[in-house]
Amino acid sequence: MAGKVQRDSDGEAAPPALGVGMVGYAFMGAAHSQGWRTAGRVFDLPLRPVLAAIGGRDAVAVRAAAAKHGWAAAETDWRALVTRDDVQLVDVCTPGDSHAEIAVAALAAGKHVLCEKPLANSVAEAETMVAAAEAAAARGQVAMVGFNYRRVPAVAYARRLIADDRLGALRHVRVTYLQDWLVDPDFPLTWRLEREHAGSGALGDLGAHAVDLAQYLAGEPLVGVSALTETFVRERPLLAAASTGPSATGADRRGPVTVDDAALFTGRLASGALASFEATRMAAGRKNALRLEINGERGSLAFDLERLNELSFHDHTEPAASAGFRRILVTEPGHPYLEAWWPPGHALGYEHTFVHQARDVVHAVAAGNTAPAPSFADGLRVQRVLAAVEESAARNAVYTPVPASAV
Amino acid sequence: MAGKVQRDSDGEAAPPALGVGMVGYAFMGAAHSQGWRTAGRVFDLPLRPVLAAIGGRDAVAVRAAAAKHGWAAAETDWRALVTRDDVQLVDVCTPGDSHAEIAVAALAAGKHVLCEKPLANSVAEAETMVAAAEAAAARGQVAMVGFNYRRVPAVAYARRLIADDRLGALRHVRVTYLQDWLVDPDFPLTWRLEREHAGSGALGDLGAHAVDLAQYLAGEPLVGVSALTETFVRERPLLAAASTGPSATGADRRGPVTVDDAALFTGRLASGALASFEATRMAAGRKNALRLEINGERGSLAFDLERLNELSFHDHTEPAASAGFRRILVTEPGHPYLEAWWPPGHALGYEHTFVHQARDVVHAVAAGNTAPAPSFADGLRVQRVLAAVEESAARNAVYTPVPASAV
Amino acid sequence: MAGKVQRDSDGEAAPPALGVGMVGYAFMGAAHSQGWRTAGRVFDLPLRPVLAAIGGRDAVAVRAAAAKHGWAAAETDWRALVTRDDVQLVDVCTPGDSHAEIAVAALAAGKHVLCEKPLANSVAEAETMVAAAEAAAARGQVAMVGFNYRRVPAVAYARRLIADDRLGALRHVRVTYLQDWLVDPDFPLTWRLEREHAGSGALGDLGAHAVDLAQYLAGEPLVGVSALTETFVRERPLLAAASTGPSATGADRRGPVTVDDAALFTGRLASGALASFEATRMAAGRKNALRLEINGERGSLAFDLERLNELSFHDHTEPAASAGFRRILVTEPGHPYLEAWWPPGHALGYEHTFVHQARDVVHAVAAGNTAPAPSFADGLRVQRVLAAVEESAARNAVYTPVPASAV
Amino acid sequence: MAGKVQRDSDGEAAPPALGVGMVGYAFMGAAHSQGWRTAGRVFDLPLRPVLAAIGGRDAVAVRAAAAKHGWAAAETDWRALVTRDDVQLVDVCTPGDSHAEIAVAALAAGKHVLCEKPLANSVAEAETMVAAAEAAAARGQVAMVGFNYRRVPAVAYARRLIADDRLGALRHVRVTYLQDWLVDPDFPLTWRLEREHAGSGALGDLGAHAVDLAQYLAGEPLVGVSALTETFVRERPLLAAASTGPSATGADRRGPVTVDDAALFTGRLASGALASFEATRMAAGRKNALRLEINGERGSLAFDLERLNELSFHDHTEPAASAGFRRILVTEPGHPYLEAWWPPGHALGYEHTFVHQARDVVHAVAAGNTAPAPSFADGLRVQRVLAAVEESAARNAVYTPVPASAV
Repeated sequence: MAGKVQRDSDGEAAPPALGVGMVGYAFMGAAHSQGWRTAGRVFDLPLRPVLAAIGGRDAVAVRAAAAKHGWAAAETDWRALVTRDDVQLVDVCTPGDSHAEIAVAALAAGKHVLCEKPLANSVAEAETMVAAAEAAAARGQVAMVGFNYRRVPAVAYARRLIADDRLGALRHVRVTYLQDWLVDPDFPLTWRLEREHAGSGALGDLGAHAVDLAQYLAGEPLVGVSALTETFVRERPLLAAASTGPSATGADRRGPVTVDDAALFTGRLASGALASFEATRMAAGRKNALRLEINGERGSLAFDLERLNELSFHDHTEPAASAGFRRILVTEPGHPYLEAWWPPGHALGYEHTFVHQARDVVHAVAAGNTAPAPSFADGLRVQRVLAAVEESAARNAVYTPVPASAV
Repeated sequence: MAGKVQRDSDGEAAPPALGVGMVGYAFMGAAHSQGWRTAGRVFDLPLRPVLAAIGGRDAVAVRAAAAKHGWAAAETDWRALVTRDDVQLVDVCTPGDSHAEIAVAALAAGKHVLCEKPLANSVAEAETMVAAAEAAAARGQVAMVGFNYRRVPAVAYARRLIADDRLGALRHVRVTYLQDWLVDPDFPLTWRLEREHAGSGALGDLGAHAVDLAQYLAGEPLVGVSALTETFVRERPLLAAASTGPSATGADRRGPVTVDDAALFTGRLASGALASFEATRMAAGRKNALRLEINGERGSLAFDLERLNELSFHDHTEPAASAGFRRILVTEPGHPYLEAWWPPGHALGYEHTFVHQARDVVHAVAAGNTAPAPSFADGLRVQRVLAAVEESAARNAVYTPVPASAV
Repeated sequence: MAGKVQRDSDGEAAPPALGVGMVGYAFMGAAHSQGWRTAGRVFDLPLRPVLAAIGGRDAVAVRAAAAKHGWAAAETDWRALVTRDDVQLVDVCTPGDSHAEIAVAALAAGKHVLCEKPLANSVAEAETMVAAAEAAAARGQVAMVGFNYRRVPAVAYARRLIADDRLGALRHVRVTYLQDWLVDPDFPLTWRLEREHAGSGALGDLGAHAVDLAQYLAGEPLVGVSALTETFVRERPLLAAASTGPSATGADRRGPVTVDDAALFTGRLASGALASFEATRMAAGRKNALRLEINGERGSLAFDLERLNELSFHDHTEPAASAGFRRILVTEPGHPYLEAWWPPGHALGYEHTFVHQARDVVHAVAAGNTAPAPSFADGLRVQRVLAAVEESAARNAVYTPVPASAV
Repeated sequence: MAGKVQRDSDGEAAPPALGVGMVGYAFMGAAHSQGWRTAGRVFDLPLRPVLAAIGGRDAVAVRAAAAKHGWAAAETDWRALVTRDDVQLVDVCTPGDSHAEIAVAALAAGKHVLCEKPLANSVAEAETMVAAAEAAAARGQVAMVGFNYRRVPAVAYARRLIADDRLGALRHVRVTYLQDWLVDPDFPLTWRLEREHAGSGALGDLGAHAVDLAQYLAGEPLVGVSALTETFVRERPLLAAASTGPSATGADRRGPVTVDDAALFTGRLASGALASFEATRMAAGRKNALRLEINGERGSLAFDLERLNELSFHDHTEPAASAGFRRILVTEPGHPYLEAWWPPGHALGYEHTFVHQARDVVHAVAAGNTAPAPSFADGLRVQRVLAAVEESAARNAVYTPVPASAV
């Protein structure tokens, strides 16, 4: 027997398509593409993601990205992309300064939206987005924000343990997110170092993940923060200068860094637990050290993104003599997302968070679940914390309340 | 602008296709599929892998696998698959007892071949395969064996350090491969526990990887071994009985385990370095602990597959006070395979070994490189070690020479 | 040949005696005793410590302690102890509220003084002690404060690496000191939980070590802090009640906890580096986790007291591909204090910090070095930071400058 | 009140003295001295160890050692030492070739004996010693062999877990003992590299510990072994030449190494469990890596002497999702030996094994326990394994039974 595989004509009908349109094709675009391509190959999904169209301003580059990553069409105008008939879900992978405009337009066009983190560069933008998401939810549309680290199986399993009350009353949440790509003072002045594009520096890039994870895992919001921020290297080579080397005139062209290199903040969660955070891109030797530890009256958890297949768990209800932090390899079929992957002990990687994210948003769309997690409201909650951090840092570190979300 | 992406009509022509036909659709089939689907999306390849056809005996299952994993056609007769016009490369993912027959037929049909490890269940079969590969090489065909762990970036980087003489004269190679899925005495009697299908137990399944890595990393062959093997649980529930539970008659149906549960062996490398190996599926708590350490006069290396993004390296030429095993996160652009992936610190997983394997075999095909690594001859070399291990174990552990390969 | 060993009549004269009088005989008393007994047996010392007298209020208990720990005499009045003719050095191991009175009296009596940390319970007391130490220094007396963790070989070696500029400009110092002995809400109300005796809670007990290490390792002072503190369990069983169980009347007798359970603070070092601190006795599963990490432009260091024989060092000047945190076993003869101990790889423990402290103070006395490290002025510097932390915590976490020491 | 502490005149009488005579004053002598000096200061002992006399051939050196380590007398003739009236226990710390003669004489003189490991350099000597110990036991004398690593709290606790059947039926025991002090080919030819003094090389020095721990922890003997040994560096500088540098004639004076650099062996325990061993002094970067792992049907244990305060324990009866190797800090009051030491989390070191050993032998003497562990018979059992290893290595690695002990 030999036969053409026809997904639609078999005894078992193939799932209906979900057309995806993605805006942006850099690092996040590549990662999301891998997620969309793979999710339906691994998980049994109620809808089949179709990589319908990719958008970007540079026509040549976006066509190359489409070919490379497997998108059927390319658009140079995101407004055209978000209104295409073959697109039911818009995936926003651009820098933060354009998230609000694109996401709101996509929702207005009746599309489901997945938006990269941070939700926006300001609370005001984020509030607009939440309002748009609420209106769209009433029409059955899904809006989700891309805090992909919630989809690391070890993190999702940590949340399950906390939800199951294995930690009891929480006392401490500490999260550091350490990278080192700005240690070199000659690293160039990219968009991530410019306030008008990036909103903030390590704070929005890394701190946003840290804050979301703290609130997600604890299951409660931060209610106030005290913060210090710092820009250690105040001027960096302009991007053009950096790529061409020192100018012929002998003058290095440098421009001002307008965002933080590092942000330290402490805070309180609603329950009274203490929290501490550090986000930096100046920690030599730390490549992607999103490390967190949560201590409760009945147990503790620890996680390090550089060893993302592992979760450390201490059960404080055990006899003291045999208690200790156990290293759980989060690769068992009973762990979140793992039933679809490999046998125990076979590691997943960073990109699988995007596969899991694609899986989850597809399920939300299929189920008409207009309150997916993390929602735009979750993204706004993070944004409010980041704004309070910046306010505290500007006001001599004074403890600054985080406004409760109306939503 | 909006336009259909046409890979073939753009200014830059898309690379020509390489039709792949894969036999087998279980664990390895799923992993290889992910490799074939992804390699061209991440790496710039000279040929574009096309998932042309998948083969398997069960018509319903193979069609479902084709739909799930993205293969264009399904075949129930591997003989038909290996002669398809749209297939230029045959990927053999079946149990070891059919490797020789399929691979030899595919080579005879003029196809390139990638064959899962172990190359065969016996030295005789492996020798036949090597002869067929040599004949095919003369016709420009590529034959490669799937020792995928060579493609873990940390392992490939370890090989580079050794090739660069960072370890000096080697003294010790020790490799353990520990799993625990047979600890439960009621785990059923699958094909992997039957000699006629699996050839051997932990020895062929895990020990083959261990031996290949030892020889690959050391850059020299094992010349003799001394071995003990053991089957701790001699009878296990028959697969049918296991799935239906204890029979109504009250009699548990069990059958004999005809392969080893564990194999321990020591040996000597050609240079005189000592080697030790342990392969077991009875090490409670160890899920995929392929751990290796190599000690040389100038340095040492250590690796653990459960932390596959890391390599430990001790540089013995450093001052003693500041020397120590350093944990290298093998995620830098300068590391093998990494230039195409994510920024530093973003972990890869198990399945990426198959993406890298696909990348490498595509390059070999495109370049007409008929001596790829690992070759069928490398697979035979491993097979000869495994045979010597079994002979030694049968002869009271006496030190048993490994015949030098003619090839 | 058989002969009585006579240390004083041999060809090589035994070193002269240094009579030690110690006040306090609890945990610290036992640890210091071990230090005094052992230092001269391991190191070649210019003076031979003699355990002359131990002091404590309870006559029976102090005599038992003297016998147990090897002190020649016992005193129930510390005033008598500090004026004994056979005592040249007074070692103050009492709770913090009596440090100032005893140390000042001992200095006035012409004795050298080693005083446990924290130097005092208030800045005012610490200032008095520094003044007394300065006056005594002019008379040739030594005054040292017992920040024993400076004497962990790995910590001393970390300081050496920083002093040798292996880290370059510092960016981050982060120190957490986590214990868990107060997690149980029924742990009784000991003196360590009462402000009048302990001064503060985790802050003075653990935070004092953290602050001293940060300033010692960085080689520069903290110039300002922002802090949050918390007492999670506000009432605890009275000590009597705790030991006798619930009272017959059915009423659990509890009293108020008047110190912090946990203190979080951030700060800035003189150079502009950022610092973060956490001290808590509520981190379930962490027993003695004094963990620190320092990031500089040229490298990073990490240390964990729970693995006190190890130091992690990342050399950022290495090629990226082979760089990584190396685990240095700080047990080489070239490491601080190690030349007198065992062969490489043979671990030391907690108590050896007291042996090294005894060694160092003996050397200071013999050399007439009246500026030993850590000095009372160093202790005052820590005290000022702790006071600024408490002030900041009381003033809504506002950034609070640490007064520069006049000394 | 001030008073001379008189241990004997207090209400509570001081324990009676146990006079110790020690032969040897090098590395082991220093370590044992620290044990004898400290045991009674930390533990409540029924007898008070008195450092009565130390013996060594070099009069000047032994007197210096006596002064340094606190021994009351020095002897240059061990025969005189073992018959001193003030010595009730003889502690043999010499190289292995003199153990038998000294220990047998001491037992004949009516003394209790503690003898360093390995018990002897040959099975014949060990048998003589066991016979002498048996005869002495009948007279109430204690004879113990110094396998001090049994007294690492983590190891003792591991034994307790196994004795409590937390591991179930054992499947695997693997022990490696890796050091690196012979990596340098110019390390000189000390007595440890000469067969007539050391008996064997890494095998007796390191392998003896490994074998004793395997049999102790498993609670059962090895019944057969298969072995490879190797001497990588066959000639080394003579000790005199090494200390004076290359000779004036230009000829490096080298002599033959007559012991193994490394020994690898596998074996079977009485229960059928498989065991593997590696002892080497050529593993660059490994300083004291006595690493062991034991896998059973219900759980697993792992230990590394370089992190001696930790024990890893995997409980295989836990749900798979929350199971994992837990890192137990073996510093709790409920752990072996720990009730007398510091609060939880305060690390012990290498030398404490000798304090614990002194404690245990004192208890055995006081209790008249003439069957202490490890006994001379245990030492003989190890010796027989080492002999079988050497025999197997000489006979082409053939599996060689270990004779069962008559004792």
